[in-house]
Amino acid sequence: MDAFMQAAFDEALKGYEAGGVPIGSVIVHQGKIIGRGHNQRMQNGSPILHGEMAALEDAGRQSASVYRDSVIYTTLSPCSMCAGAIELYGFPKVVVGENRNFLGQEQRLRDAGVEVSVLQDQQCIELMARFIREHPEVWNEDIGE
Amino acid sequence: MDAFMQAAFDEALKGYEAGGVPIGSVIVHQGKIIGRGHNQRMQNGSPILHGEMAALEDAGRQSASVYRDSVIYTTLSPCSMCAGAIELYGFPKVVVGENRNFLGQEQRLRDAGVEVSVLQDQQCIELMARFIREHPEVWNEDIGE
Repeated sequence: MDAFMQAAFDEALKGYEAGGVPIGSVIVHQGKIIGRGHNQRMQNGSPILHGEMAALEDAGRQSASVYRDSVIYTTLSPCSMCAGAIELYGFPKVVVGENRNFLGQEQRLRDAGVEVSVLQDQQCIELMARFIREHPEVWNEDIGE
Repeated sequence: MDAFMQAAFDEALKGYEAGGVPIGSVIVHQGKIIGRGHNQRMQNGSPILHGEMAALEDAGRQSASVYRDSVIYTTLSPCSMCAGAIELYGFPKVVVGENRNFLGQEQRLRDAGVEVSVLQDQQCIELMARFIREHPEVWNEDIGE
């Protein structure tokens, strides 16, 4: 697995082991991870800290020039909130672990000029599928269903 | 001013008085405020706690049925991140204080079936304009520019 996707997956796994929604993300600026995080719905009762949002929060305040020279990695296809955040800050590229368990707003990102690369990584697919099987109600809540 | 927009404006003012970006929001479920907040970029170094996101976080975990029976009030037109969150959780309606200082993704929300009502409230317009005049660099950072 790509080293940065591995780091995002490690975040997802940390989330799963803590009883949370196993979606992780890292933000990479010029080859270095500047933010990382995972979904905090279960652990912190947060409806906004999806994986990507947690990584953004961890990276803290950054200028537009940093985001525009960064890549965001996420284990699962980004929902409308996370896609909107990626669009707001002008990331040129998103690397997605998989979109089999959930297809987010990849097309909208592409329409906005963002490069979207989907790895269909087996580890990401299996961990997410396992969580959805074990906690369908939490998963539905996480995607507003 | 509408009482709920007044509550959102009070949040914005609280933010301004703390040296922050003056955008506030409340979430109203069946006539009762269940979440309120304001932008936390300056106060907490947060790139994700825009007004609407802070109100969502304050409301905490809610089922889809609650969001779908709620209205979100925000003093300023929602950016792509906040519009994406509104879309994710299925709010049927957004009441916007003003869109003169910043026109967010209202059209996208309408296309997604969300009712968007814009009040063009003078207090909201003036407070936001004042902040942008005083801190243009923070404002640009807040909208990824």
